[in-house]
Amino acid sequence: MKTIRFIAAAALLVLGGTAQAQTDPLPSWNDGAAKKAIVAFVNATTTPTSPTFVPPAERIATFDQDGTLWVEHPMYSQVMYILESVPALVKAKPELAKVAPYSTVLEILKGDRAAIAKLTLPDLEKLAMATLTGMSVDTFSAEAQRWLAAAKDPRWKKPYTELTYLPMQEVLKYLRANGYKTFIVTGGGQDFVRTYSERVYGIPPEQVVGSAVGTTYGYDKAGKPFLTKEPKLLVNDNNGGKPEAIHLMIGRRPHIAFGNSPGDQQMLEYTKAGDGARLSLLVLHDDAKREYAYGPAQKLPDTKVGAFPQALYDKAKKDGWIVISMKDDWKRVFAFE
Amino acid sequence: MKTIRFIAAAALLVLGGTAQAQTDPLPSWNDGAAKKAIVAFVNATTTPTSPTFVPPAERIATFDQDGTLWVEHPMYSQVMYILESVPALVKAKPELAKVAPYSTVLEILKGDRAAIAKLTLPDLEKLAMATLTGMSVDTFSAEAQRWLAAAKDPRWKKPYTELTYLPMQEVLKYLRANGYKTFIVTGGGQDFVRTYSERVYGIPPEQVVGSAVGTTYGYDKAGKPFLTKEPKLLVNDNNGGKPEAIHLMIGRRPHIAFGNSPGDQQMLEYTKAGDGARLSLLVLHDDAKREYAYGPAQKLPDTKVGAFPQALYDKAKKDGWIVISMKDDWKRVFAFE
Repeated sequence: MKTIRFIAAAALLVLGGTAQAQTDPLPSWNDGAAKKAIVAFVNATTTPTSPTFVPPAERIATFDQDGTLWVEHPMYSQVMYILESVPALVKAKPELAKVAPYSTVLEILKGDRAAIAKLTLPDLEKLAMATLTGMSVDTFSAEAQRWLAAAKDPRWKKPYTELTYLPMQEVLKYLRANGYKTFIVTGGGQDFVRTYSERVYGIPPEQVVGSAVGTTYGYDKAGKPFLTKEPKLLVNDNNGGKPEAIHLMIGRRPHIAFGNSPGDQQMLEYTKAGDGARLSLLVLHDDAKREYAYGPAQKLPDTKVGAFPQALYDKAKKDGWIVISMKDDWKRVFAFE
Repeated sequence: MKTIRFIAAAALLVLGGTAQAQTDPLPSWNDGAAKKAIVAFVNATTTPTSPTFVPPAERIATFDQDGTLWVEHPMYSQVMYILESVPALVKAKPELAKVAPYSTVLEILKGDRAAIAKLTLPDLEKLAMATLTGMSVDTFSAEAQRWLAAAKDPRWKKPYTELTYLPMQEVLKYLRANGYKTFIVTGGGQDFVRTYSERVYGIPPEQVVGSAVGTTYGYDKAGKPFLTKEPKLLVNDNNGGKPEAIHLMIGRRPHIAFGNSPGDQQMLEYTKAGDGARLSLLVLHDDAKREYAYGPAQKLPDTKVGAFPQALYDKAKKDGWIVISMKDDWKRVFAFE
């Protein structure tokens, strides 16, 4: 019995190995430095005879989401969710209709897109707490899913969840096929991203690390327990908060990490500072035709959403991080192209 | 090619299935209600034709650690670590030698075990912050591992990490073999448990949810980044804090959960309140001969460490939770027996 099983397993391994060697795991990537670096990293960390071999249990890959795995322009999807949740909030509490920032949001939604510039960061935080907390985690999850099913990006007229980058989807699959556990590490809301991460990226909720508010355990009138989302930020998953959250939620240093803006810098530093083979990568949005072009690095237009400053570009070059040029490195950007 | 691969895969499946059916997955359990309930739960949630079938991605199992997976008497292992870390602390800051609670700990370590009763909960919290924070996460991890390699339980004269319950190790393996992802959800320190969870339980660090302090990202003089453990509790993973931490760190409700004391009650309630097949279980320490006997449930002796009150026992019986009698349900307690 054991012999038959062994032969079957060996046959599978051999055939599996052959099949893999014959297929390009990253067909949407042009043959450039970025693709080469990713493939070399995977070989260096998964070939058993490699001096920088990493045991499967320690293969951790982390990905920022907005601007790294999917489109973040003209505005982060979750901010659109927050803004578009305001009318329901105002319906429940009509006195808010004349109070800023709620009144400003109502103007924006009526078509005055320029009014969006009036919103300050404290405004956005106030709106976020008002629309993302104060309900049970199940209610929030249902509302977010309902919105995601109906909402459409203004340029492509497609659900936001279809605006993921095909080359990055290939990297996720390629790393997983090589024993890597893939994690999202996003400044966005953990509960929001978890509603679609499995369907959209093949990443289960427990592998989504994001900004998170605290919850409180309680009981309804029938004695059934539930968790309420509280207006208190517990994890701010940006900048230094990214390695801190990685330690809290994963407990291991990543071997490879992807980002696209200064909020990812510390995660990429932390990754690169580990021993053995480590790879840090940044997506540069330099493709106005197929997606968007913004920097201000490399004289690309400046932006308030997901900026990539020249200082970050210079640091990447100095420290051996890979800058992925959307224009030059990606053969295709979206699956629907 | 595809046909050969398919035949090989089919052969593996058939042989694998036969092998599993022939072997008792829980050989250290007596054939009683507890074993029956666990096996029935696994069959009900993993048989594709079962009305309560659970897709593999949603199979989450959570385990308290102290008193559920390993021995917690006469004192939690991590409290021993905290106490035994005090001499090094006093060596670095000699002025602490005459200040309570440090002076009390020095008395205890000199052999005055009765002095342990003098330590209050605020004392323990103070000692915990003094010995578990203020260093880098890597330094803490190295110190904890050094202690665990040398420290011995006073009764069995074995490393604490050998004092895990064999029947529970079998449950962990049995659930994993059936597609469950196993998590530790402990009131103990997350960073402490993560240093040995993989080796001892086959549970990787990212599947350990515990009480956790915040960390701060910074740089050493050479510019190398590191994380410092701060004396600020971020996650208190006890009572209502358990389902709250499960939501934060896992994001799904468990289908099966194990505990042994009131700190686990809310996790077991939360688990049981989900739809479909859910199982909540409590370990009752009623075996003074092979381990310890403490309640005060069922007229067992009372204790300050891991008490199991009668009210919890009554709630378990009322709500259909399973109480595991160490004496009656476990054929063997330890692997070294």
